[in-house]
Amino acid sequence: MSQGTIYGVGLGPGSQDLMSVRADRLIRQASHIAYFRKKGRTGHARSIVEGMVAPDAVELPMEYPVTTEIPFDDPRYNALLADFYAASVARLTEIIDAGGDVVVLCEGDPFFYGSFMHLYTRLKGRVPVSVVPGITGMSAAWTATGQPVTWGDDIMTVLMGTLPEETLAEHMMKTDALVVMKIGRNLDKVRRALTRAGREKESWLIEYAAMPQERVLPFSEAGDSAPYFSILVIHGNGRRP
Amino acid sequence: MSQGTIYGVGLGPGSQDLMSVRADRLIRQASHIAYFRKKGRTGHARSIVEGMVAPDAVELPMEYPVTTEIPFDDPRYNALLADFYAASVARLTEIIDAGGDVVVLCEGDPFFYGSFMHLYTRLKGRVPVSVVPGITGMSAAWTATGQPVTWGDDIMTVLMGTLPEETLAEHMMKTDALVVMKIGRNLDKVRRALTRAGREKESWLIEYAAMPQERVLPFSEAGDSAPYFSILVIHGNGRRP
Ligand SMILES: C[S@@+](CC[C@H](N)C(=O)[O-])C[C@H]1O[C@@H](n2cnc3c(N)ncnc32)[C@H](O)[C@@H]1O
Ligand SMILES: C[S@@+](CC[C@H](N)C(=O)[O-])C[C@H]1O[C@@H](n2cnc3c(N)ncnc32)[C@H](O)[C@@H]1O
Repeated sequence: MSQGTIYGVGLGPGSQDLMSVRADRLIRQASHIAYFRKKGRTGHARSIVEGMVAPDAVELPMEYPVTTEIPFDDPRYNALLADFYAASVARLTEIIDAGGDVVVLCEGDPFFYGSFMHLYTRLKGRVPVSVVPGITGMSAAWTATGQPVTWGDDIMTVLMGTLPEETLAEHMMKTDALVVMKIGRNLDKVRRALTRAGREKESWLIEYAAMPQERVLPFSEAGDSAPYFSILVIHGNGRRP
Repeated sequence: MSQGTIYGVGLGPGSQDLMSVRADRLIRQASHIAYFRKKGRTGHARSIVEGMVAPDAVELPMEYPVTTEIPFDDPRYNALLADFYAASVARLTEIIDAGGDVVVLCEGDPFFYGSFMHLYTRLKGRVPVSVVPGITGMSAAWTATGQPVTWGDDIMTVLMGTLPEETLAEHMMKTDALVVMKIGRNLDKVRRALTRAGREKESWLIEYAAMPQERVLPFSEAGDSAPYFSILVIHGNGRRP
């Protein structure tokens, strides 16, 4: 029996009709659907495809063993996650080896800060894997602001709110257009870095881009924290005729 | 009679099934389709949707008045382009005011270094405009390399090959993941900048990502120039369990 294929499918930012035609087709035809989620939750990726999955499709939720109980820099954190990824890969590989295909749901674009990558690097070379790119959360975010993000030869920088304040401020100073992701509980630090870089006034915060709760606000009007699905955008201002 | 709407529709990187479901629907149902092209050419955006446009749709090619005859920094260049955009906007506005809808085809994501933005800023506030984000060329490019582009809290920088060598090198040095677009005739300059930054060996060149001629090569194997549809990628290497 020949091996099946793992499809790492980018779902785009959250609206079903912002999924690619290829993703839409793969999800509707899938015999097996896998996705990450926190214990006891539906899972965001799974909820995006609600109503699209065939009734007889086999669902394979992969439940994270840790959330926020163990700090990032604790060696147990990495060990637990590594075990979890290994177990997930074993489960998927079994289906592939028996000739089945599995669609793995990935928020946004799978290769852009996605959690699928941790499976991917472990699957590559062992089983056939095909990756379907998707519209990123940041594309939906700047689209929601109603203003182009980059012009001419603007420089764009993408930063994670998890970086040290110093690093954030340094890069914020030297770029034209800016995107900051993973803001959540890092909001205060991100604000201090923006202030140090003198760029707070140009900043927009976009919550839940392309989702029903979408909200666009000047960053100065943000509160003490932001939801997980939040992106900061500064628009570039390059050469334009 | 009520006004119609202008849809700035992201086509994604070039493969029809990497278009969003929303884009696919809008294009197939469009009564009027507008797109930029060089005089005497089909136009790349138009060729992506070949076979999708209704036979009775009205096509509105917008032909660039200048290509490479007048240099960038010549004031006539900007003046000519400004006139061209004004004329295009007048043509589209007439249709919208008569109650028609127009789909404007945009390569990749419209608000990410796209030419649609020049129409958009002139149309906004005058007629209803709706922008549909798309998969960027860079997402297709890093997907083609078969390696995730960013992990953990990697910093990603997007540069245009049109920037000065000095600026390119400076930013290449300070980022984890890197994307360089608009390479074409800037290839040699981009190579010198990479060498100065000590990052040539990590670089990949992706030509025609997600198109039939797609090609992925180590940047060191690139020749003296690259096609217009080329992207340079350096993968980040962040924290990973
Ligand atoms: C682990 S990253 C995943 C990024 C995803 N692969 C992509 O291509 O957009 C999670 C972060 O992406 C951002 N994000 C993704 N989609 C979003 C959306 N629709 N609205 C707001 N933020 C989003 C948030 O900053 C969030 O913290
Ligand atoms: C004017 S910009 C348009 C970018 C587009 N709006 C996007 O979202 O990708 C043109 C540049 O995009 C890059 N590009 C866009 N699509 C591409 C593809 N499919 N393959 C390779 N390069 C691409 C090339 O570097 C090209 O010079």
